[in-house]
Amino acid sequence: MPKTIALLTDFGLEDIYVGVMKAVILKICPAAQIVDVTHSIQPQNVREAAFSLLNCYQYFPEGTVFCVVVDPGVGSARLPIAIGTESYSFVAPDNGVLSYALAHLDADYRAVKIENPAYFADRISHTFHGRDVFAHAAAHLAKEPSVLADLGDEVTSIVTFPMPQLSYARHRLIGEVMHIDHFGNIITSIGAFSWEGDDILQLRPMWGEEIPAMQLSASHAHITIHSHTAHNISHAYHEVPLGAILAQIDSNGFLEISANQDDAAARLDVQIGDKVMLRLSK
Amino acid sequence: MPKTIALLTDFGLEDIYVGVMKAVILKICPAAQIVDVTHSIQPQNVREAAFSLLNCYQYFPEGTVFCVVVDPGVGSARLPIAIGTESYSFVAPDNGVLSYALAHLDADYRAVKIENPAYFADRISHTFHGRDVFAHAAAHLAKEPSVLADLGDEVTSIVTFPMPQLSYARHRLIGEVMHIDHFGNIITSIGAFSWEGDDILQLRPMWGEEIPAMQLSASHAHITIHSHTAHNISHAYHEVPLGAILAQIDSNGFLEISANQDDAAARLDVQIGDKVMLRLSK
Amino acid sequence: MPKTIALLTDFGLEDIYVGVMKAVILKICPAAQIVDVTHSIQPQNVREAAFSLLNCYQYFPEGTVFCVVVDPGVGSARLPIAIGTESYSFVAPDNGVLSYALAHLDADYRAVKIENPAYFADRISHTFHGRDVFAHAAAHLAKEPSVLADLGDEVTSIVTFPMPQLSYARHRLIGEVMHIDHFGNIITSIGAFSWEGDDILQLRPMWGEEIPAMQLSASHAHITIHSHTAHNISHAYHEVPLGAILAQIDSNGFLEISANQDDAAARLDVQIGDKVMLRLSK
Repeated sequence: MPKTIALLTDFGLEDIYVGVMKAVILKICPAAQIVDVTHSIQPQNVREAAFSLLNCYQYFPEGTVFCVVVDPGVGSARLPIAIGTESYSFVAPDNGVLSYALAHLDADYRAVKIENPAYFADRISHTFHGRDVFAHAAAHLAKEPSVLADLGDEVTSIVTFPMPQLSYARHRLIGEVMHIDHFGNIITSIGAFSWEGDDILQLRPMWGEEIPAMQLSASHAHITIHSHTAHNISHAYHEVPLGAILAQIDSNGFLEISANQDDAAARLDVQIGDKVMLRLSK
Repeated sequence: MPKTIALLTDFGLEDIYVGVMKAVILKICPAAQIVDVTHSIQPQNVREAAFSLLNCYQYFPEGTVFCVVVDPGVGSARLPIAIGTESYSFVAPDNGVLSYALAHLDADYRAVKIENPAYFADRISHTFHGRDVFAHAAAHLAKEPSVLADLGDEVTSIVTFPMPQLSYARHRLIGEVMHIDHFGNIITSIGAFSWEGDDILQLRPMWGEEIPAMQLSASHAHITIHSHTAHNISHAYHEVPLGAILAQIDSNGFLEISANQDDAAARLDVQIGDKVMLRLSK
Repeated sequence: MPKTIALLTDFGLEDIYVGVMKAVILKICPAAQIVDVTHSIQPQNVREAAFSLLNCYQYFPEGTVFCVVVDPGVGSARLPIAIGTESYSFVAPDNGVLSYALAHLDADYRAVKIENPAYFADRISHTFHGRDVFAHAAAHLAKEPSVLADLGDEVTSIVTFPMPQLSYARHRLIGEVMHIDHFGNIITSIGAFSWEGDDILQLRPMWGEEIPAMQLSASHAHITIHSHTAHNISHAYHEVPLGAILAQIDSNGFLEISANQDDAAARLDVQIGDKVMLRLSK
């Protein structure tokens, strides 16, 4: 049975970097099934990478090894780590990039430093640990999961960074833009929602710990970003005219602002990090 | 023997969407060989996707399952369908995206709705049927082709849309720009041609049903797009000086307007849908 | 054991070209492991492709077949060739694109023309030898390496082009920009270097035959590109403030000019081919 290795980086596809990581992997583990999650994370945007990992990991087969390399600190003292859970393994720099997925997975895990030279390249460059450290470790873990214990000493605490913004007061949920996709859809930190009826949305907050789970009426929700407000949450793009802006629930349960067959982010001049408000009326 | 699943979408590679579809596929059919045809179809341009599928499908191994997701109507009432022929299977929204390939394949086929919940995700999002419906169905078909009969009721007619423009009158073939490639080559709807001699081209029209098959002289063909005219059809780029505009026959038999080592579309300011004329002189 | 086929082209990922090459390969060699090195070589930039191949080939498993298609002369009289060494095989147009890798590999090889019609497509288009010639030959070689002898007559000399610029005089190494990566890092022809101590770099010149191997002090090196000078060679990005320009040694041993978490090429307005100087002071 081939073992899946999922790659998530900010290396882009213009250079040879991703191809070289795959070469290294296949030399160690020829049967690996390598899947590109994406290599277009905004350069060095660790939070966007963490959010992307959160939104994809659970769709992968059990046993998948995630190799996540968004690493502003390459060459510095930050540790390369490997983490094993019952379902998945992860290798990444210890910079918080695994935070959201591990919080969501909410499982026991074992974290170790990658420090045993038997499991990385003979010479380690200062600029490309993706090739010299992370691809090696991921391939060895895919070949033989028990390698985890040999990679290095256990790490008792790993770096986590603050969860995305989500606050609630006076019938207002305040969040932020987490990702802008290829279509110009604006994905926010407000969620996770699921539809429980034609007009009823159930909110089970992913973060913002003080916020209770709650139900809300889609037709009484007002979503504001910059100076634009949408006055309900739609079920699908086609519910509004071509080109119109709408709010809806994205495929991972997050509040999304989109335009029907148009680029909402360009239209509204939105950037990652911008503030979003969902106000509930009676 | 691994089964090939070919993906053709407008999802781009900047986001996690394509990676998540692959995750879903590998969970169901771990032995799948997944090939990206392209994910850079112009967003929601169903005709460009149909033309791309036409130009690639026959190169794939028998048994390949094509998963084609260009879907302006996601979340609306349009049906997801699966189609089986003797050689290939297809899953796609029923929006015409399979039209050109099926017309060219010209084989018996069986079309069914994808409606049996055993073959898609537990919860179906409103925005990402690529993940929740099409990847599931494609993986099940790759694993076991006989699944087709279980997916849902047979569909007696599927959506087709008008064939690309191609008309003929008074020694003039009129067509349109179907695709502009990465090099700036302009691919038109005028074809399919094959070289039958150094100056002789055989036209077997792909559409425009009233047009007869005909032979024409490459040196007596005048190709006009916007205000530019090329006064013959060349055999290859190097027949004209560096940077010069030329007309030739592309690798799928369509009339192409190019520039030798330059970007013809940028130089001539051409867009998909623009008109092209091929005039025959004595 | 799957056989790896590595693809390196200037076809981009916007079109179906790469997908079609993979289709052709899988039809001939269903067990192939296909790896994209990159498809974003600057259109028709044979030297950039040669440099990319140099920097990746050695990371691939033994037996890998490299299919390199950057081919300004497609349709002209330039030959398609295949080359076998003890470790790797290569198929490419005979235009020098293999020059740097073969020089570095420094091994016996056998070069043949690809001219036996049993090993390419029934009809060969004038514009897409990647599909009709190179993908076929690569797949046959991956399936059965002994096919090399059947592909065509032996070629006694292949096209090579001048090595990248590297000269040395009066304590100055002069080179040129070879590649600008996705992050805006500027990779030069000055190398290969390896760190031999905290301040000691060993230079083993990759080209510029008259240049001796030498050791130099990283803290006494002054690197100038356009009007900017960096006054030492750093070990890693974080040694300079955020946004600051630095010189360092890239993951393949070449001198690189970068900016800490910023785009150096944009900041300094650098293009491929621009001149770079490394001056040694006492």
